[in-house]
Amino acid sequence: MSNKIRVAIIGYGNVGKYAVQAVQTAPDMELAGVVQVPFSQVKPPELDDVPYVSSIDELEAIQAALLCIPSRSVPDCAPDILNRGINTVDCYDIHNGIADLRRELQTTAEKNHAVAVVAAGWDPGTDSMIRCMFELMAPRGVSYTNFGPGMSMGHSVAVKALPGVEDALSMTMPAGAGIHRRIVYVQLKPGVNFEDIEQAIKKDPYFINDETHVEQVADVKQLLNMGHGVLIERKGVSGQTHNQLLQYSMNVNNPALTSQIMVSAARASIKQAPGAYTIIQIPLIDFVYGEPDQIINKLV
Amino acid sequence: MSNKIRVAIIGYGNVGKYAVQAVQTAPDMELAGVVQVPFSQVKPPELDDVPYVSSIDELEAIQAALLCIPSRSVPDCAPDILNRGINTVDCYDIHNGIADLRRELQTTAEKNHAVAVVAAGWDPGTDSMIRCMFELMAPRGVSYTNFGPGMSMGHSVAVKALPGVEDALSMTMPAGAGIHRRIVYVQLKPGVNFEDIEQAIKKDPYFINDETHVEQVADVKQLLNMGHGVLIERKGVSGQTHNQLLQYSMNVNNPALTSQIMVSAARASIKQAPGAYTIIQIPLIDFVYGEPDQIINKLV
Repeated sequence: MSNKIRVAIIGYGNVGKYAVQAVQTAPDMELAGVVQVPFSQVKPPELDDVPYVSSIDELEAIQAALLCIPSRSVPDCAPDILNRGINTVDCYDIHNGIADLRRELQTTAEKNHAVAVVAAGWDPGTDSMIRCMFELMAPRGVSYTNFGPGMSMGHSVAVKALPGVEDALSMTMPAGAGIHRRIVYVQLKPGVNFEDIEQAIKKDPYFINDETHVEQVADVKQLLNMGHGVLIERKGVSGQTHNQLLQYSMNVNNPALTSQIMVSAARASIKQAPGAYTIIQIPLIDFVYGEPDQIINKLV
Repeated sequence: MSNKIRVAIIGYGNVGKYAVQAVQTAPDMELAGVVQVPFSQVKPPELDDVPYVSSIDELEAIQAALLCIPSRSVPDCAPDILNRGINTVDCYDIHNGIADLRRELQTTAEKNHAVAVVAAGWDPGTDSMIRCMFELMAPRGVSYTNFGPGMSMGHSVAVKALPGVEDALSMTMPAGAGIHRRIVYVQLKPGVNFEDIEQAIKKDPYFINDETHVEQVADVKQLLNMGHGVLIERKGVSGQTHNQLLQYSMNVNNPALTSQIMVSAARASIKQAPGAYTIIQIPLIDFVYGEPDQIINKLV
């Protein structure tokens, strides 16, 4: 038996696929298997010798499960795993539901001597860490979180649901000071009038409050890419000193980053007392591979 | 008796002066007094009704002391305060001594049921938090910490110590990829030859490895300002995905930021189990004022 943390991946969409690579790359982890729900008999060829199963019960001695599933499924799935005494890490991204979700999972986690890490993606997630840091450095002031350029799943799905739309991609473009523009690329079904679709999009609740541009394209698939970014800015006050300028930005492959953060959170979960945590409630050092004094010498 | 954390400030140099403002601004703190060592009978007028004393024993019911003193004095001063059961926060900045200092203070802190937070400035300090975050997001890769523009105390003091130098200021200028240039402004004593001083500076161990420019000025005091900055960059790998680009930068009043971070660390110290911690060993949420669920709703 190795000392490595045995990790299961639940769900095999974009995040799940990159999570396989991140777990396999982590020096202190062992990929126990991928749980695909709903299960498809056809095993994806790239999973090679990775166990591919329909239930976590088919895998042995799992210590942590990465829930690479839609946010709305997390509140049901997480307690189910925690009840087996297995730690969970999710990337739940419904901001105003995080405090409640954490509180709900707290009881289940404690009862089962397990740990849940909630909302461990990049926003919520590492962006939340940055907002916390900026607050402790300059408690008074205004922070802006500017997203993009990158695709918005929620907005793209809303456009795809409109009658007459074959495929769609909604890009989030930062316009500064936390304001965003939307650029929507639509591929229409034959005979559909572009102006009608354009109006329908601009009136949709997802878009009505943002400056929205709609463009017709022949093939949306040619535009897809998983790049995303963020710029977080704060102009704040430290003590009584104004104009303290703080800035954080990144440009990344979105699911690769999300899954890496989840893997680092799984490592941290092993070191926490039973309970449920957002990532700002766990010391930063616990996410990093290595012995504490080595990490302090290298990073502090 | 209020519920506020009673804080003492030890030392009244640049950081101590700004620490007074930061403690007075914190809604959950009460400034118990300033301890000045060596003590000067003349109370600085801006301290107004703040107790100004020569020993912490003259102040009552102190819960945390901010050690606004030179780094080399911290290893002696901190145990002395911890032995009184009072938490300490320092901004010790000798990078390769931090792990040892923390280990030494750990025993004293535990024995006295107190908490020491070590190296709680901006570098080491919040920059260390960023380096930790970048590591958990992209474990493989290279990070660069670029300092400045801003004055370097250590380098300025080294130049001031040269015979013939009346006053000096050494500015650190970032040249990218963690490389720094030094611009040294010197004010000379009458009859001193500039070229001799220029050569002496360039041969000094503080400067010999850096590109150094020396300029003669009539009055160094006219150049002084407490602005400083940093740019931390990482190009790294998340899982097996390359070219993940992460960046953090700030432009700040240096002692105002340092003291604010120390004040936030004093708040965090109250919430930790007895022992000694670097700031990457404490959950981010503990540094921020407010109730956990409020903070989660606002910042996560």
